[in-house]
Amino acid sequence: MNSRIKTNKVNACIVVLARNNELYQLKSSMRQFEERWNKKFNYPYVFLNDVEFSEAFINQTSSITQSETKYAVIPKEMWSYPSWINQTKAAENRKKAEQDHVIYGGSESYRHMCRFNSGFFFRHPALLDYDYYWRLEPSVEFMCDIDYDPFLFMKKNDLYYGFTISLYEFEDTIPTLWNTTKKFMKEYPHYINDDNSLKWVTNDENNYNLCHFWSNFEIANLNFWRSEQYIKYFEYLDKEGGFFYERWGDAPVHSLGLALFVNKSKIHFFNDISYSHPPYQHCPIDKEFHESGRCHCNPNKSFDTDWYSCTEKWWAL
Amino acid sequence: MNSRIKTNKVNACIVVLARNNELYQLKSSMRQFEERWNKKFNYPYVFLNDVEFSEAFINQTSSITQSETKYAVIPKEMWSYPSWINQTKAAENRKKAEQDHVIYGGSESYRHMCRFNSGFFFRHPALLDYDYYWRLEPSVEFMCDIDYDPFLFMKKNDLYYGFTISLYEFEDTIPTLWNTTKKFMKEYPHYINDDNSLKWVTNDENNYNLCHFWSNFEIANLNFWRSEQYIKYFEYLDKEGGFFYERWGDAPVHSLGLALFVNKSKIHFFNDISYSHPPYQHCPIDKEFHESGRCHCNPNKSFDTDWYSCTEKWWAL
Repeated sequence: MNSRIKTNKVNACIVVLARNNELYQLKSSMRQFEERWNKKFNYPYVFLNDVEFSEAFINQTSSITQSETKYAVIPKEMWSYPSWINQTKAAENRKKAEQDHVIYGGSESYRHMCRFNSGFFFRHPALLDYDYYWRLEPSVEFMCDIDYDPFLFMKKNDLYYGFTISLYEFEDTIPTLWNTTKKFMKEYPHYINDDNSLKWVTNDENNYNLCHFWSNFEIANLNFWRSEQYIKYFEYLDKEGGFFYERWGDAPVHSLGLALFVNKSKIHFFNDISYSHPPYQHCPIDKEFHESGRCHCNPNKSFDTDWYSCTEKWWAL
Repeated sequence: MNSRIKTNKVNACIVVLARNNELYQLKSSMRQFEERWNKKFNYPYVFLNDVEFSEAFINQTSSITQSETKYAVIPKEMWSYPSWINQTKAAENRKKAEQDHVIYGGSESYRHMCRFNSGFFFRHPALLDYDYYWRLEPSVEFMCDIDYDPFLFMKKNDLYYGFTISLYEFEDTIPTLWNTTKKFMKEYPHYINDDNSLKWVTNDENNYNLCHFWSNFEIANLNFWRSEQYIKYFEYLDKEGGFFYERWGDAPVHSLGLALFVNKSKIHFFNDISYSHPPYQHCPIDKEFHESGRCHCNPNKSFDTDWYSCTEKWWAL
């Protein structure tokens, strides 16, 4: 075993939800994540899976980092149908979604994953001791050296959420999410923040414009997801059944929760973190990132100003 | 400017033939190359181009490494038509090759590049002071830490050539290369090594089986290419005109030269260097590479034992 180094100043961890068969794609992500940043800060990893991790997964992921690594199974109740869900109806709707070519429309596990990421990961026993997390996925890339501690930056500035890429959601996956959200807002108006960012997620007709933060990258405050208003919102959504009858993603759910409940100054765009999750990437366009040798991404291929990105809209808020 | 560190024990360099518009793909290669290996050894880079490098190319490639970086233009005589080439015939043949969907069949610059890599790079003024080189291309990956100096390994063992991937050539690109090679062998039988590896490049009918080392990766001895027999072979091929009338690649030319002139023990398969040049990659399959945290490649996707690889045939020699 490596000797584990602990230098971090914030109570934070890297959260990885991964399957055993994603080992090599994940090691590729971890290698870049370590080299661009974490080898200098040694934040611990928490690996989550709905089944037991394999010996190979544990051996290989723990040997590619000097940091502490923890492996935990997701409790059944966080990855299964709640009692009020009609599973026959859910199966029929999955079949229909698949026929309609909705992305991941036929997948049952994808739905459990989205629901877990929407409402449960932050209360998983392995995460209860932490205040902040950085979500890391298989097959992603980090193309700029990060020479400071983003967790410390989040903490010092009392930020709740950091993103690098935003874009439009597939409407087919969330037909009733916005109406459900509007009903929630009517019933719980006192939860809505006065300086919210609803303008970023709505169009002129007060419908959802489908904008959301791409949640495969997140640096965020776990305590926001644990807050009364967000938990109430998640439970309200969960009762409606859209995680199973439709295919609500954790990205729009997180984004709408943030848009409703937090002061928009609590949300930070990490321009200096270059991140690629194919097919999109964020790469800072400022010259100094490239002339200094800090980055190896192509600024001309940064997604920020693409027609399909919502980031310019965010900047304009 | 960075302070340049010189710790290398072998008179060797990294050779990069690249265009200005390949800057970001090249930086991506360099980043991995540095992190897996060169940051510990600091071998200098020699960048070659048939036109002047841009200021951005020079600034950005020099800032992503601590090593010395040199930039040189290729002299006209190494990147143009020799007097005996019928350029009208060459243009007609390019057109035909393009119509026949020969890969890079229509490209004039690709042909100059293949000829340059076959017969000139090792005599380029910027390389004359070196004995060994490692060829590096844009958009490649290195997936295993290399904790020793392959140049020193080459020198100590008096090796001439190191490879990671071998495969079959497209026959359309080299219709007359083998017959030309056979004529050369007949005229210069004294150049043929007694312990050659002709068996690796020929089939039962003594025709070329199309096997070659994939030359986008090479760690090799420059003095072999500068040897009398190889220069004679190159000049013989060059007179035939197949670099222009057909589309002879530097990979089969290098490979046939090696197969003819060197003792096969001088050629080394670098199993411990994991290398990816899409669509193929070499990844060592031995467990210790993966359990030690040294590699992040997927051994199940290694090309070595693919039906289209010639490496098993090499091992069987």
